[in-house]
Amino acid sequence: MGLRASKLAEVLERVISLPQYTLLGAKGGRLIYYAWEKGERSLFSWDGSERVMLASNVVETSLAVNGRVAYTLDVERGREIHRVFLVDEKGNTLEVDSPRLRVWNLSLRDRLAFVGTSDTTDLYVTDGQKAVKVTRLTPLSWVGDVRGDVVAGTEFKGDGSSNLFFHYLGEGRTERFTPREGSNNYGSLLLEGRALFMSDFEGASKIYELDLRSKELRKVMEGDVSYSFLDVQDGKLIAVGVRDGRSRAYVEGRPLRTPEGTVTNVFLDGRDTYITFTSMSTPRSILKLSNDGWETVLGVGKLDVGEVSFHRFKSFDGVDVPTYTVMSKGSTVPGPAVVYLHGGPWGEVADEFDWFIASISMMGLHVIAPNFRGSTGYGEWFRKLDIGDPGGGDLRDVVEVVKQTSSLHTDVCAVGYSYGGYMTLMALGRFPELWKCGAAGAPVADWVEMRSLADDAFRGFVDLLLKGDVNLMRERSPISYVKDVKVPLCIVTGQNDSRTPVQPVLRYVQGLVEGGKTFELHVLPGAGHLPYTEQEVTKVILPMLLFLEDNLKSPPPGQEDGSRHQSGQH
Amino acid sequence: MGLRASKLAEVLERVISLPQYTLLGAKGGRLIYYAWEKGERSLFSWDGSERVMLASNVVETSLAVNGRVAYTLDVERGREIHRVFLVDEKGNTLEVDSPRLRVWNLSLRDRLAFVGTSDTTDLYVTDGQKAVKVTRLTPLSWVGDVRGDVVAGTEFKGDGSSNLFFHYLGEGRTERFTPREGSNNYGSLLLEGRALFMSDFEGASKIYELDLRSKELRKVMEGDVSYSFLDVQDGKLIAVGVRDGRSRAYVEGRPLRTPEGTVTNVFLDGRDTYITFTSMSTPRSILKLSNDGWETVLGVGKLDVGEVSFHRFKSFDGVDVPTYTVMSKGSTVPGPAVVYLHGGPWGEVADEFDWFIASISMMGLHVIAPNFRGSTGYGEWFRKLDIGDPGGGDLRDVVEVVKQTSSLHTDVCAVGYSYGGYMTLMALGRFPELWKCGAAGAPVADWVEMRSLADDAFRGFVDLLLKGDVNLMRERSPISYVKDVKVPLCIVTGQNDSRTPVQPVLRYVQGLVEGGKTFELHVLPGAGHLPYTEQEVTKVILPMLLFLEDNLKSPPPGQEDGSRHQSGQH
Repeated sequence: MGLRASKLAEVLERVISLPQYTLLGAKGGRLIYYAWEKGERSLFSWDGSERVMLASNVVETSLAVNGRVAYTLDVERGREIHRVFLVDEKGNTLEVDSPRLRVWNLSLRDRLAFVGTSDTTDLYVTDGQKAVKVTRLTPLSWVGDVRGDVVAGTEFKGDGSSNLFFHYLGEGRTERFTPREGSNNYGSLLLEGRALFMSDFEGASKIYELDLRSKELRKVMEGDVSYSFLDVQDGKLIAVGVRDGRSRAYVEGRPLRTPEGTVTNVFLDGRDTYITFTSMSTPRSILKLSNDGWETVLGVGKLDVGEVSFHRFKSFDGVDVPTYTVMSKGSTVPGPAVVYLHGGPWGEVADEFDWFIASISMMGLHVIAPNFRGSTGYGEWFRKLDIGDPGGGDLRDVVEVVKQTSSLHTDVCAVGYSYGGYMTLMALGRFPELWKCGAAGAPVADWVEMRSLADDAFRGFVDLLLKGDVNLMRERSPISYVKDVKVPLCIVTGQNDSRTPVQPVLRYVQGLVEGGKTFELHVLPGAGHLPYTEQEVTKVILPMLLFLEDNLKSPPPGQEDGSRHQSGQH
Repeated sequence: MGLRASKLAEVLERVISLPQYTLLGAKGGRLIYYAWEKGERSLFSWDGSERVMLASNVVETSLAVNGRVAYTLDVERGREIHRVFLVDEKGNTLEVDSPRLRVWNLSLRDRLAFVGTSDTTDLYVTDGQKAVKVTRLTPLSWVGDVRGDVVAGTEFKGDGSSNLFFHYLGEGRTERFTPREGSNNYGSLLLEGRALFMSDFEGASKIYELDLRSKELRKVMEGDVSYSFLDVQDGKLIAVGVRDGRSRAYVEGRPLRTPEGTVTNVFLDGRDTYITFTSMSTPRSILKLSNDGWETVLGVGKLDVGEVSFHRFKSFDGVDVPTYTVMSKGSTVPGPAVVYLHGGPWGEVADEFDWFIASISMMGLHVIAPNFRGSTGYGEWFRKLDIGDPGGGDLRDVVEVVKQTSSLHTDVCAVGYSYGGYMTLMALGRFPELWKCGAAGAPVADWVEMRSLADDAFRGFVDLLLKGDVNLMRERSPISYVKDVKVPLCIVTGQNDSRTPVQPVLRYVQGLVEGGKTFELHVLPGAGHLPYTEQEVTKVILPMLLFLEDNLKSPPPGQEDGSRHQSGQH
């Protein structure tokens, strides 16, 4: 017998109970930040001595502007139906009168603007306490900024490219803008009569300024693969570029020397500079630049999660697959390894603290985390490679990485959440010989049924990713390959998940039952796609760690031949 | 937040890792025993110095006769398809050549005899290494003894009464015997030309001797409510009587003064007397009578599980409901309580060590364990009260006990396994206002579908309990009341359970999903109705303890009104 449940739970609790902090704004020495503390997500204001809790159980927040923050609460137990609030730094709270919907994202400056989705996806702007629907948007649209009478954002198109949009409140008019059809344009930030944004219309991602009236474009900055944060503070341009999952921060184009890892954002407060920082081994923290370098204002410092490194592997067609590996201190090389498949698919495993990766490494398993095609952070061309091909080329990338890392691992187990859960099910169904086992959290089991249960945003997501092709949806659904699964499979999913709903997962499980497959299923109570509390995070990850302990790390003797009760018997 | 998962797992592991021992035979100072050690069930032979492991992963064993034991292994990962072995005290093992079936029970003396069930239920006897089918029996038949050419046992009838049967191997003839139609007759032990057995044909259960030829009956012993063990050793009659869940052991009718609790069996070895003993606070142990009283030969002694007491409550119709309560040391009175519903239904909560009860009490919850009508240990008339009425009078007994113990508890949660899981689902569906929550392990969700998936034994069980009445099966199935469930529900079940199969549970869960109920589901991999290893026991009980912690002991603030995210917000 390997590690007992209590020891695995301790490993997990050590990882997930570490406080984490995200700065939302800094002004006159007062920090407004989002915290993960005592197993809950809260919002605080702190002037260096007194700390005020502004809200608890917060799902998403805007940045703080003039001492105010907007945030959402999920009021339907994981279903991601949100109520919207505004709170000032003293804790005075105002609930926005808004309809029952999923808040897709929100932005606060002169007003609060948000994108909400239910049967349609729409832009809402507050008028006093009331949220008013101002225009319909395509699914997967983001609001970027609201200044004066202008609301700016990004609107996706069916081919995966994205326009900027500018909505003029007074006139009720929406303008769409793209520098070139098919390009991707994000993160609009409104200045007086101008907008800053990021675009790949000239190839690599660069930062541009657009004159809203003349539509004249001016290149402001270039040099990184992508940009993850863009702001103007005290008249200075702040940008964070990303390359190979690590950040490079700039103030007015001058690099800020930050530790190796991910800089989420940068805030200038008079002569002080703050960043939110994280790495594979550093839970999200707030750092301040002092004469001696970066000092941790809020955060727990480094954790020994193992040896982190970054590699590129050539895939079947010559495309590079950027991959992070974390070699566990509790194992040998080669040793059993988890192939961790990130969600999204438009996401990435960057040099950021990750509960899955940290706890898996700390329980004694290596982690190999390929950024398969479709991942963000390596250029829009790379991200868009999975449009029309999910569970295709991306899955072959993963298989290639497994093969090319064979010197590192003995057995491999696929583990992932959301799209990563989908990839896990597809991996077990389509490459059943490669794996020792698989653990899928909140997976897509059937694109067709998922689409039929989805709101406008996720219907749009499925249609975009699979080009609205029902035959392709069927061909790329794990439920079509359930009979081919050969190794033990663990599935964990929330009963109220409104992104990857439980119904198709239950049908998939019926297939596992009928096929006599070895599996475990954990449907979690009152939980949705996103676990909100330590309790919920534990219920998602602990069964997976127990499963990995039993099936990958310390499989019971004789399990290979399926006859455990015979072993050691004669 | 209450106890973290790691602490709950520690409580559970402390309880389930305690070694337990059952003596199977003692001769010349050599003990043959069945052990729960290091989280596995094994068979050992021990002469006081050297210990030989005879077998591991053992499911069931016979008593040891002349230094030999028969045992079974489950070779289909929880499906209870068994292989049968004979092993001597040196560890020499012989596999019996037997068909693919569930071994219902087995008995060893001059030969090995067993009852096996698949499409039919049959008596098998070994001829050399081979198991030979000798006659068909009704479902739910037990073999009691095999001596010379005679095999004796008990055969159930459709009304719940039971005959003795005597099969004469030479002649291929089977005789049925009952002292009175409708009476219950058990535990036949063969002597030369005679059989000892227990019967209730004169009212209370007594021990009789039957002359096999003349059918003359002689009363041998009386005075207890029921008898749980009967043997003749060195020519002396050994019997263990039971009253109110506690044992009274006799040698030749003279009481053996044993500790308060349960005596599983008694073995005389020359001048030494051994018993297998357990109580609510004593894991199963092997004790030896010395001049100073009973000394523990194998076992861990007492555990502080809380304050155990026994009560009787009057049910709706005047029937007494014998009930054990365990008041947790970690709680107040009144405090949150688990109403623990035993399996069977022909079983009982006696003064015996129980993993569920001990771990629930030690996590800080009181336990109230009613022996509802249908329980064993209180006379056959009481046991048979649930025939034709499962989930009826027995459930009303439980409701009465909850009401009459209101001074002990604040909130109550129903918890049970197997038939106890069934009772839990019925309790939540039919008395939804009474409960704070419910946790059902391996429950019957639908008698009709369970019957359609069952082998002859469990088909016979369903037909007996529900009188073969499909309408009654529907009316008494939890799936008919899924829409009425109002409180959080946790279900844990094994994917390979061949008694209460997973398919109807999944249909029940579909109903929970459609009804928007708060639930969690854990389907366990490669596991059947009976968890065999500490790993499997952990996977059954730990999710239940986590669920009880969240929903009964430390419910999140504001849970009562279903709006946890609002609480503490304004």
